[in-house]
Amino acid sequence: MKIAVLPGDGIGTEIVEQAVRVLGALDLKFEMETALVGGAAYEAHGHPLPESTLKLAKEADAVLFGAVGDWKYDKLERQFRPEQAILGLRKNLGLFANFRPAICYEQLTHASSLKPELVSGLDILIIRELTGDIYFGQPRGKRTSPDGNFPGAEEAFDTMRYTRPEIERIARVAFEAARKRSKRVTSVDKANVLETFQFWKDVVTEVHKDYPDVELDHMYVDNAAMQLVKAPKKFDVVVTGNMFGDILSDEAAMLTGSIGMLPSASLNASRQGLYEPSHGSAPDIAGKGVANPLATILSAAMMLRFSLDQEEAAQRIENAVKKVLAQGLRTPDIYSEGTTKVGTREMGDAVLAAL
Amino acid sequence: MKIAVLPGDGIGTEIVEQAVRVLGALDLKFEMETALVGGAAYEAHGHPLPESTLKLAKEADAVLFGAVGDWKYDKLERQFRPEQAILGLRKNLGLFANFRPAICYEQLTHASSLKPELVSGLDILIIRELTGDIYFGQPRGKRTSPDGNFPGAEEAFDTMRYTRPEIERIARVAFEAARKRSKRVTSVDKANVLETFQFWKDVVTEVHKDYPDVELDHMYVDNAAMQLVKAPKKFDVVVTGNMFGDILSDEAAMLTGSIGMLPSASLNASRQGLYEPSHGSAPDIAGKGVANPLATILSAAMMLRFSLDQEEAAQRIENAVKKVLAQGLRTPDIYSEGTTKVGTREMGDAVLAAL
Ligand SMILES: CC(C)[C@H](C(=O)O)[C@@H](O)C(=O)O
Ligand SMILES: CC(C)[C@H](C(=O)O)[C@@H](O)C(=O)O
Repeated sequence: MKIAVLPGDGIGTEIVEQAVRVLGALDLKFEMETALVGGAAYEAHGHPLPESTLKLAKEADAVLFGAVGDWKYDKLERQFRPEQAILGLRKNLGLFANFRPAICYEQLTHASSLKPELVSGLDILIIRELTGDIYFGQPRGKRTSPDGNFPGAEEAFDTMRYTRPEIERIARVAFEAARKRSKRVTSVDKANVLETFQFWKDVVTEVHKDYPDVELDHMYVDNAAMQLVKAPKKFDVVVTGNMFGDILSDEAAMLTGSIGMLPSASLNASRQGLYEPSHGSAPDIAGKGVANPLATILSAAMMLRFSLDQEEAAQRIENAVKKVLAQGLRTPDIYSEGTTKVGTREMGDAVLAAL
Repeated sequence: MKIAVLPGDGIGTEIVEQAVRVLGALDLKFEMETALVGGAAYEAHGHPLPESTLKLAKEADAVLFGAVGDWKYDKLERQFRPEQAILGLRKNLGLFANFRPAICYEQLTHASSLKPELVSGLDILIIRELTGDIYFGQPRGKRTSPDGNFPGAEEAFDTMRYTRPEIERIARVAFEAARKRSKRVTSVDKANVLETFQFWKDVVTEVHKDYPDVELDHMYVDNAAMQLVKAPKKFDVVVTGNMFGDILSDEAAMLTGSIGMLPSASLNASRQGLYEPSHGSAPDIAGKGVANPLATILSAAMMLRFSLDQEEAAQRIENAVKKVLAQGLRTPDIYSEGTTKVGTREMGDAVLAAL
């Protein structure tokens, strides 16, 4: 079992370090190799995703990823910015299925912006397509506007697009996931305006015929953004495209109040995967030893489950995390009166002890 | 002053009727003409936006619009569906500037999903560009995929695009609006992924040079969807494109808890405008006399202010609405214990009395 460890920028190094310690404490043999990615790689090698890092990721069974990005790279040309590393990894490894759980942890219910009764026990799984849509569609660029409201003016443009097989495979992932949960899928589209998402809706409906035991409904993206705020618990599995998924998965993560706790997985067809916390690189608190490592530790658990076939070890980690929460240990981001404030390393220690 | 009255479908007729009564009670002379739009127009004339309705709208100084749509039209070909009427009106009248206030009414604070302290006193103005972006971009349609992940497969596609003058004019609208408020604008983009929105960000930044008294910041759309949930009061004026604006304005409206109360305006360069409630046609309660007419009545007030230059009359209506709320009158959607439940017409009566 080979794991590529890519800590990245900001708090990335600190939080990944704790996840690596946790993995090391299991009675399993991993080959782990670390490489630079994002801004750190740009500074050392002049590119956010150097060939050597990409090669390592491709050869590994799974990638454990921290976070990338820092304000100081904002002025770089787009191709050199840290985020390009993550887009490059998704594209080159074919990581089309992004799993973004939005879970409200019992002990953190009060931390949500929403009233406790609306989020307590919340457990949504957002499945976002990750290698298609307007993120990678060609053509894109700048030109003289050929028509529209100001023909002849300077214009920038992008292409939104989905092929039938791309929609089919992500729909299957969603229906399969729903079978292991409450057997309900909400497909989010904008079929009333976009050709791409009318097609999305049609293809998801066709694939649904193979899953008669799963309930499917369709919702427009603007309505989904509203219903998430109004009654998030009405959702179970949500499947959508790359762009809408980017927006809705972040909205959903934030309304749980548990964003420092949420892992994510991005998988390809052969179950190779990239695992990272849902939160970002938080350059403002980097190096201070206060970042919450739990989302990354839980991402390592997802890695064991999805890419390394170690369900038991995954559960051991998840139970250990539950235990430290029950013990009242909290990093500053999830701290509240009556609990015990700890730093990144102490939180790692506690999870190790609970294992 | 000529007003085209387009009630539309569902609760549209009932709520617009009350707004028309309120307009009639002012000491002003209007020429009002009513026409069919949406599903109602499709049934009568075979098209959701008949030539005669479009002509009326074009000739009027303002359009007072109810709502369109009903599940029963879901199976129609896209060009005949009710929503096409609203897209057609925006396009044909050049209504590029959409004003979507997200206000939390003091008396309705408890109705929000969010904790009261996060929304009490909330007053955001979302300015959405309405005639460009992926809504109207050509080319769009279906084809055999020329490249991408599955070359040769069946594919649907759309084009996202913005020209410099389109971005410039909406940016100016936002900066001007901010000057009358707290002088802060947040421009929402996805410059880290999209050519269109890197250009958007660049042009907004250039236009900002003409408004040195206004503070400008930039935010990615996924982050904006999160920050709206986390700390909505940090926003004042938000400006963004058509697609992101669709999603964020609905999210923001829902988190106020006051969606039955929120008006909207869509203006063109000559201040001709379309005014409609932010909520939809609610076919489930249509004809029952229980719909909340206040968002439509407040839309009529916006119409007086923006298109008809009757600031005083606009304020009279807004004060009358405040008064009926203070009197404790509530339609079922905003009802809570200790208040008085009234129907659509009674609410209209109360506003008339308060005038
Ligand atoms: C960094 C950015 C390119 C990325 C995205 O938009 O996909 C991020 O927001 C995410 O969701 O992983
Ligand atoms: C009905 C639909 C086409 C429309 C839109 O997407 O613009 C609606 O959601 C809106 O926001 O007015």
